[in-house]
Amino acid sequence: MTATENPPKKYKYVGTRPIRHDGLDKVIGKARFAADLNLPGQLRAVIVRSPHAHARIVSIDTSAAEAMPGVKSVVTGADFPELDINHATFDESVNVMARDEVLYHGHAVAAVAATTIGEARAAAAAVVVEYDVIDPVMEIEDALADGAIIANTKNRTLFMGSDDESNLASFAPFSRGDVDEGFGSADVVVEGHFTTRFVHQGYIEPHGCVADVGQDGKASVWGSSQGHFAMRSKSADILGWSTDRIKVTPAEIGGGFGGKTTIYLEPVAILLSQKAARPVKLIMSREEVLRATGPAPAAEITCKLGATNDGELTTMQATMKYSNGSAKGYAAMLGAMSTASYKFPNLSIETFGTINNIPRSAAYRAPSAPQAAFAVESLVDEIAKAIDMDPIDLRVKNAVVEGDLTAMGAPHPKIGFIETMNAIKDSEHYNSPVPEGAGRGFGTGFWFNIGEQSSATVNLNEDGTATVITGSPDIGGSRASMALMAAETLGLDPMRITPIVADTESVGFTDITEGSRATFATGMAVTNACLELVAEMKSRAAVLRGVEVDAVEWVDGAAIVDGHDPLTIPEITAQAKMTGGPLTSTASLNAAGAGPSFAAHLADVRVDEETGQVEILRYTAAQDAGTAIHPSYVEGQMQGGSVQGIGWALNEEYVYSDDGVLENASFLDYRMPVASDLPMIETIIVEVPNPSHPYGVRGVGETGIVPPLNTIANAVSDATGVRMRNLPMSPPTVLKAINDAKG
Amino acid sequence: MTATENPPKKYKYVGTRPIRHDGLDKVIGKARFAADLNLPGQLRAVIVRSPHAHARIVSIDTSAAEAMPGVKSVVTGADFPELDINHATFDESVNVMARDEVLYHGHAVAAVAATTIGEARAAAAAVVVEYDVIDPVMEIEDALADGAIIANTKNRTLFMGSDDESNLASFAPFSRGDVDEGFGSADVVVEGHFTTRFVHQGYIEPHGCVADVGQDGKASVWGSSQGHFAMRSKSADILGWSTDRIKVTPAEIGGGFGGKTTIYLEPVAILLSQKAARPVKLIMSREEVLRATGPAPAAEITCKLGATNDGELTTMQATMKYSNGSAKGYAAMLGAMSTASYKFPNLSIETFGTINNIPRSAAYRAPSAPQAAFAVESLVDEIAKAIDMDPIDLRVKNAVVEGDLTAMGAPHPKIGFIETMNAIKDSEHYNSPVPEGAGRGFGTGFWFNIGEQSSATVNLNEDGTATVITGSPDIGGSRASMALMAAETLGLDPMRITPIVADTESVGFTDITEGSRATFATGMAVTNACLELVAEMKSRAAVLRGVEVDAVEWVDGAAIVDGHDPLTIPEITAQAKMTGGPLTSTASLNAAGAGPSFAAHLADVRVDEETGQVEILRYTAAQDAGTAIHPSYVEGQMQGGSVQGIGWALNEEYVYSDDGVLENASFLDYRMPVASDLPMIETIIVEVPNPSHPYGVRGVGETGIVPPLNTIANAVSDATGVRMRNLPMSPPTVLKAINDAKG
Repeated sequence: MTATENPPKKYKYVGTRPIRHDGLDKVIGKARFAADLNLPGQLRAVIVRSPHAHARIVSIDTSAAEAMPGVKSVVTGADFPELDINHATFDESVNVMARDEVLYHGHAVAAVAATTIGEARAAAAAVVVEYDVIDPVMEIEDALADGAIIANTKNRTLFMGSDDESNLASFAPFSRGDVDEGFGSADVVVEGHFTTRFVHQGYIEPHGCVADVGQDGKASVWGSSQGHFAMRSKSADILGWSTDRIKVTPAEIGGGFGGKTTIYLEPVAILLSQKAARPVKLIMSREEVLRATGPAPAAEITCKLGATNDGELTTMQATMKYSNGSAKGYAAMLGAMSTASYKFPNLSIETFGTINNIPRSAAYRAPSAPQAAFAVESLVDEIAKAIDMDPIDLRVKNAVVEGDLTAMGAPHPKIGFIETMNAIKDSEHYNSPVPEGAGRGFGTGFWFNIGEQSSATVNLNEDGTATVITGSPDIGGSRASMALMAAETLGLDPMRITPIVADTESVGFTDITEGSRATFATGMAVTNACLELVAEMKSRAAVLRGVEVDAVEWVDGAAIVDGHDPLTIPEITAQAKMTGGPLTSTASLNAAGAGPSFAAHLADVRVDEETGQVEILRYTAAQDAGTAIHPSYVEGQMQGGSVQGIGWALNEEYVYSDDGVLENASFLDYRMPVASDLPMIETIIVEVPNPSHPYGVRGVGETGIVPPLNTIANAVSDATGVRMRNLPMSPPTVLKAINDAKG
Repeated sequence: MTATENPPKKYKYVGTRPIRHDGLDKVIGKARFAADLNLPGQLRAVIVRSPHAHARIVSIDTSAAEAMPGVKSVVTGADFPELDINHATFDESVNVMARDEVLYHGHAVAAVAATTIGEARAAAAAVVVEYDVIDPVMEIEDALADGAIIANTKNRTLFMGSDDESNLASFAPFSRGDVDEGFGSADVVVEGHFTTRFVHQGYIEPHGCVADVGQDGKASVWGSSQGHFAMRSKSADILGWSTDRIKVTPAEIGGGFGGKTTIYLEPVAILLSQKAARPVKLIMSREEVLRATGPAPAAEITCKLGATNDGELTTMQATMKYSNGSAKGYAAMLGAMSTASYKFPNLSIETFGTINNIPRSAAYRAPSAPQAAFAVESLVDEIAKAIDMDPIDLRVKNAVVEGDLTAMGAPHPKIGFIETMNAIKDSEHYNSPVPEGAGRGFGTGFWFNIGEQSSATVNLNEDGTATVITGSPDIGGSRASMALMAAETLGLDPMRITPIVADTESVGFTDITEGSRATFATGMAVTNACLELVAEMKSRAAVLRGVEVDAVEWVDGAAIVDGHDPLTIPEITAQAKMTGGPLTSTASLNAAGAGPSFAAHLADVRVDEETGQVEILRYTAAQDAGTAIHPSYVEGQMQGGSVQGIGWALNEEYVYSDDGVLENASFLDYRMPVASDLPMIETIIVEVPNPSHPYGVRGVGETGIVPPLNTIANAVSDATGVRMRNLPMSPPTVLKAINDAKG
C-alpha cells in the first residue's frame, strides 16, 4: 500500500480487514439468492421468446397454452399498460415484454405460469405467435448506412431536433482548442481504427425473482438486483402502479457488475401472480441471460493523437461509435470521459450511439470507458515508442491534476492519477526485467464515479451493540465497509455492529448500487447517522453526569467528562430509557463530491507465435481508492475488474449469426477467463483521500476494468511488434495479425 | 360518541374508520402467524413436561431419547447458563426450563428436536426424569400458613430485608388519613371477603416460534409476541448472548392480552437449533398453553368501606392477597391502583403476593385491577343501596378529578372519570326500564396506562406515498392507527401510507405492547417523525420556490407559498433528489404523560333461579379514549375487554386437583363466553383528550376488562337480592348462594 497523505491519517477500524459479516453464510451456502426462495403454492413461470432477431408481431394466440394442464396464468404485452414513448421506463418496458415488434432474438413475447416448470415449458411452447420477419441490423456501420432498415421503429433522436425514425440513438460532440492547429504543430501524429465486440458482465447468478400479489393488490417481490428501490419504482412504473403497492426484498446478489441495474422479469412475475392469485417464481436460464439481457456495447473508434518530440500530448481527435443494442442504453457519451486523463489542449470528439437488433445494452463496470481507453491508451503507447520515451513518464508529463478540465468541461477535483502511475513505477514488478521472450505493457484507466441518493438508519441496542441498516445491496463487501465506517465514527468494535441490507419498506430510498457509489454515498449516510448518534450520546452522557453537553468529549467510543470515569456505549445505552429513550438515527442524502478514481496497470505477456495464444505472466494493478475502508475488498474489486478486462481483451465476444442469433450462448462457448488462465493479480492500493468524504473514500468498483484492454494490447504489441486494434485478441486474431505482419 | 372538548377538535383523518391495512390478508388467511413459517430442513420440537406440580429433579437421562430415530438434538436445564437469582430474567429463565426443581405441573424439564413431530413426541416420551415429589402449595392461604411447604425455594422476599425462603413474594402497604377515625365517623360501614380464581387470557393462537441458528452463531427467530424486542433481549439474557446475535421477526399475533409479554419457547428453540444446525419449529398445543403459561392471579381480598349518609366515601381499608403462581409475576401492587377512582380521605391497603405451585402468572389486561375493583365497586354498590342513593350519583360525588391523589401518591392528570359515568347516565340503556324480572348493575374501572420506549421511522417514497415503520406488534389495529396519525400529521391519505411492523434489525428499540401504550407512545414516535418530515418538506419547498423557509406554510399535505400553487407531497418527493435527497425520519422516545383511562359499564341480567345461570340481556360500556384514533378499534377493545371480563365474572376459572393438576386444560372445559352467550356489547366512546399526546390519545386496551366483574356482580345482586363475592358466578355457585340465602 502506498499512502500519499503525509502523514497518512490513522484510523482504528477503517483500513482493517475483519471477516465480512455475511461471509460464513456465503461460504456454507446458507445465504439466500434469487432462486433460493420458495413460497407455499408457488407457481413456476417460463418466458416465451422470439425466435427472430427482428420482426413485427402479427398475432399472439395463447388459448392453447391456457388450456394446458397446470397452467394458471398467461400474459402478453397486451396485459401491460401502453406507455408513452417519452416515459422514463419506456425502453425497459419494451425489454420486459415486446408489444408490436421484436427487437432481438430471445425478446420476451409472452409468459406462462403453471404448477410445475415442466408444465410451464410445455405451455410456453404452445403459445402461437405469428411474426412478420424483418432483416436484422447487426453492425454499427450497417445501422448508420444510408437507407438502413430501421432496427427499432420506436427510436427517435429527439435531441437532434428530429422526430424521424432512426438507427441513431445519440450524438454528442466535445471540443476545445483548435485540432487542426494542434496536428499542424505536432511532431508525431498517430492514428488508428479500433473495434471491440459486445461482451457480457459474466455474473454467476442468472436473473430471477419470486412475486406474490395479495388479494389487496399489493405485491411482494424477492429478487436479485443492484438496486431494489429501482426494481420497485421501475416495476411500478411499467405496471402503472404506485410504488407503495410493491415491496421488494433484496436477495443476496450473485454478481451484477452493472447487468442488474435494469429489470427484465419482475413486472412479468407480478402480473402472472396477480392473474393466478398465487406466488410465481421466474428464473432465467444461463442461455436466457446471454440471449436476452444487456451486454456491454460494441464499439468502432477512430482516434488520432498528436504530440511533440519532447512528449507533450497536444491534440486528440476521435470518432467513437457505440452500439446501444435495441434501445438507448449505456453507450457513447460516457466514452468521452476516458479522454479525461490527459490535458490535451486541443480536442475534438464525436460520439455516436446506434440501435441494432441485439438486446438493449446494460451497464458493465465503467460503461463505455474501457472501449475508449483502449483506443487512446494504445495510441499514447505508440507515441511513447515513436519518441522513445518511457510510457509512464510520457503519461505523467501530460496527466491531469486537480483543476484541469475533463473533456466534458468540469474541472477535476483532488485526484491521484500521477500517484497511481508512480506506484507502478515504484513497484517490484516494474523494476524487474521483462521475462525472456515476453512483452510488457502499461496502461491506465479512469472513472469519474457518482454520488446519488442513499439512506441509512443506525440503531443502538440495549446492550450497546448496533444495527446499521442501508438499502444498498451488498455486491462487493459493503456490509463490512458500512460496519467499519460506523465502527470508526461511533468508536465501536465492528463485530458488535450488524449491517443489514433492508427491504424497500424498512429503510429510506436508496439509488442503485452503480457508478461505484455505495461505499462513498451510502457510507456517508451511515457516517452522518452515526455522527448524530454520537451527538445524542454526548447529550445523554451530559444528563447522566449532570454537566453541560459542551463539557463532554467523545473519545474512542466513550463520553469523557473531567473527573469521571468514561461512559462507554453499553453504559449509555443501558440507561437510555431514563435519558430519553432508544438511540436511533436516520440520515439521507444526495451525495455530492464523488472522487474520480484512476488506475494504472502493468502486464507481462508471452505470445505463442504458433497458436496466437496470449499468456499473462505477471499482472499488477494500482488504483487510487481514496481511503481503502476494507482493503481486502478494494483489492478484490481491483482483481475482479482486472480479470474481467483481461477477458474482454483476450477472448470474450458475442458471436452472432447473420440472422442475429447468438451462437455462443453458454459459458462453454462464451470464453471467460478461469483461474488457471491467470497469474495472481498483484494489487497496489494508492490512497489520495477524497476531501468530500468523511473517510476519504473514492469508489473503486469500476476503474479497474478500464486499463486491461489497453494494457494487454500494449503488452502484446511489445511482445510481437504487431499493434492489435481489434478485440478480442483471441488466438486466431493474434495469429492472423502476426502472419499478416510477416507478410 | 360523546365529545367533551368544547368545541371538539376536528381532524381530517384521525377519528375516521378506514379498512385496516392488514385486514384483507387476515380475512383471506394470508397473514402469517407463528405456526405458518416453515423453513427448508426444519425440525419439529417437543417439550418434555413435569407430571408433578412440585418436585425436586433427581436426574435426567436423555440418552435413550438421543438414540431415537430422527432425533437431532436434546436440551435440558443443564444446557442453559446458570443465572444469578437477582438476574432480571431469572424467573423467566426458570419458566423456560426447570433446573433443580419443578414448580408446577407441566413445567418444562427437557426438549427434543427431530425430523418429524411424531419422532419428536416419541423421543420426548423416552426422556427419563427421576423426581423427588413434594406436596404442592395451591392456595393463597396455604402459602401464607405457618410452617407452609416452600413452593419455590428460589423465592426471596428481599425487599422486606430477609434472605429466607418464603412463599411471600411481595408485601406493600399504602395509607393516608386515619382509618380508625374514618370508620368512627362513618354512618354506614360495609365489609366483605372477595375471591377470584386463576383465569386465562384466552388468546386464540398458542405460543410458537421457529428458530434458525447459523454457523456464525447468530439466531433468526420468527415468533408471536407482544414485544419482539423483549423477546430478543430476554432470549439473549437467558442464553448469555449479546442481543445482536438474535434477530426476531414478528409474526402476526393471534391475541395476547398480556399473555405474550413473557417468553417460554424461544431460548429452547434456539439451543435446539444450534445443537442440530437446523431450523427448529416449536409450537405449543392448547393444553400446553393452559398447563404451562401464565394465568392471571387468583385473589383473596378483604375490604371495608365507610360512608356518610349523604354519600361521602370517607374510608377504605383492604387486605389484598394475590397469588403470583410459581414466581414473582403480575400481582399485588397494581391491585392497589384500583382504589384510585375515589377520593377516600382515609385509606389503608395492604397487598400481598404469594408463591404457589401454579405457572408463574402473566399479565392479563389491566393486571390485578379487575380483582381489586370487584371488591371495591361491589361495596360501593352496597353503600348506594344502604343510603338509597343512585349508584352513579354516589360515584360522581366521590370521583377523582385532575389533581386528586391516587392511592400510590401521585396526583391524577386530566381525566374523564365523571364524563364517562355521565355518558352512561345519558345513555338510552340507562334511561330504559329494567326488563321484567331482571336486575341492573353499574360499575367502573380504571387503568393508569404507561408510556415507555418506542421508535418509528417514516420514509417518503418517490411518488409521495409513505412507509411508517414501527416495532409495535399489531395486536388491535395499530397499523391502522399509526397510519391515521401519520396521515393527519403529514396531510396524506391514510391509504397512501404503508404501516409496517418491522423486525428487530429494521427499526429502533421498542418496548412491549402492554399497559395500553402502543397507540399512545408509538403513535407519538410516529407523529414526531412525521413532524420532522413536514419541517423538512417545508425547507425543500423553500428551495424549490426560492424563498425563506419562514415563508412556507404547511396546509393539508401541501407547502403553501404566497403567489405560488401549492406544492403537494408527490411534487416535493419527485424533486427530492435535487433538493437534498430522500425524505426520511426516525424518532425515538421514552414517552411521558400516559393518560389514565376510566370506564363505566351498565349491565342488565336475568338469573335463572332453577339453574343459577346468569343471562346478560343488555350491556353498555363507556370509556374515555382521550381521542379515538380509529373508533372501530377502540370499540373493539371496549367490547373485547367487556367480554373477557364477563367470562371472568361468570364462568372462567382454572380447576386444579389436590395434587396440582389442571383439570380443565382445554377450551371445551375452560368455559369462555362465545357469541351466543352474549348480546351485542354497546359502546360509548368518551373523549377527554390527553393533553400530553399530540392527538389526545389515552390507551384503551385494558380498562375495559376492569368493570365487568363488579358490574355483573352488582347486577346479579340486584336481580337476586344475593350479594355474590366469589367468582366465577357460575350456575352452581349462584344457585347455591340463592338457596343459602333462602335458608
